[in-house]
Amino acid sequence: MPTLALIRHGQSQWNLENRFTGWWDADLTEKGEAEAKRAGELLKAAGFEPRQAFSSVQTRAIRTLWLSLTAMGRVWLPVEKHWRLNERHYGGLTGLDKKQTAEKHGDEQVHIWRRSYDVPPPPMEAGSEFDLSKDPRYDGVDVPATESLKLTLERVLPFWESDIAPVLKSGTDVVIAAHGNSLRALVKHLFNVPDETITGVEIPTGNPLLIELDASLKPTGARYLDEARATELPTLP
Amino acid sequence: MPTLALIRHGQSQWNLENRFTGWWDADLTEKGEAEAKRAGELLKAAGFEPRQAFSSVQTRAIRTLWLSLTAMGRVWLPVEKHWRLNERHYGGLTGLDKKQTAEKHGDEQVHIWRRSYDVPPPPMEAGSEFDLSKDPRYDGVDVPATESLKLTLERVLPFWESDIAPVLKSGTDVVIAAHGNSLRALVKHLFNVPDETITGVEIPTGNPLLIELDASLKPTGARYLDEARATELPTLP
Repeated sequence: MPTLALIRHGQSQWNLENRFTGWWDADLTEKGEAEAKRAGELLKAAGFEPRQAFSSVQTRAIRTLWLSLTAMGRVWLPVEKHWRLNERHYGGLTGLDKKQTAEKHGDEQVHIWRRSYDVPPPPMEAGSEFDLSKDPRYDGVDVPATESLKLTLERVLPFWESDIAPVLKSGTDVVIAAHGNSLRALVKHLFNVPDETITGVEIPTGNPLLIELDASLKPTGARYLDEARATELPTLP
Repeated sequence: MPTLALIRHGQSQWNLENRFTGWWDADLTEKGEAEAKRAGELLKAAGFEPRQAFSSVQTRAIRTLWLSLTAMGRVWLPVEKHWRLNERHYGGLTGLDKKQTAEKHGDEQVHIWRRSYDVPPPPMEAGSEFDLSKDPRYDGVDVPATESLKLTLERVLPFWESDIAPVLKSGTDVVIAAHGNSLRALVKHLFNVPDETITGVEIPTGNPLLIELDASLKPTGARYLDEARATELPTLP
């Protein structure tokens, strides 16, 4: 039966600066690099030996994967990168300081944008300094202007179904390095978490979530490898 | 018309120790890491913007590619790793000190093994401490016991034809990070270098070789990006 490991990238420069990041390509800080290495060490110590890796096309997830694979002695793994594993697009909030945004729009509104399932933030204006829709990595991609978690899930799932699930169904163990919300979307799908509670599921950074699956990819077990930093997991479906 | 960049990895731990390396998975030294980063900086300064990358499945080439892509701001490129881009297999010489080997077998014999086109070194004994044929990255691969440059070329070419050439023919610029002999094999093929002179072609480490190709992938121009460390190039075919 296949096992899936999810790694949420560690601290980025914009996490450190407390700015809404989304699709902006902030790189890891030194702390984030150390978190990534630690994630790989935990996976290696757990005896996890994946044969295929996936990441988003964002630097912080890619480098998290690279540093983890280096710590695991598995830099040779095939890696597929895809924009559908990107972080949720934060629309017009991208680049803003979280505290200043709360002062401007009110705590309640910001809480809705951050924690509702289906309310996207205001869209990013075309030509904004944080607009990456012309970046060559997105050639041919219909880059969103903003996303709710629901919209994020709706674009993650097709890639899960087309590229990740078939690998797992062939019995191959897989590791995915991605982001708070793209991983939350996967967890929602796998554990069948209701819309009302999914935004309360918080995957810690750099703490690999190991999910055992049955042949139909239904989770039969799940655990964080760093128990001291574990958060509550959804119940098995 | 497509452009191809070849990057030979920089110093590895076994280069430093003057040992025959071949398929042994020696990692880069700090000097080798700096060479890789510099190669990426040179490619970026040259305005080279590849859309696809290839490497061997050996750590020193993979990490050379990663460090180069990081310096180029293109970590998001799709990367295909394949054992057919590996270094020439050094057979029973793998792991031996080059100086001691010359003392034992004589300079002339070692020169033949290193510089002849079609004389492979003695085969590696199965179960040798340097035998990586059971490594999971080679599952399903008929790992050679030794290789001449000719044998190296014969296993590089099928991958060139099946995976690299079609990408270039579609007009896509490509970067390959690999090894002294797998890159020499590619140069022999592209420039139609005779058997008698190919082992005299020495691609410097960390010095990107930029090759302009026509639609049939015949070179129309070639240059090293670090001119001060350039070696003689074969004449255009």
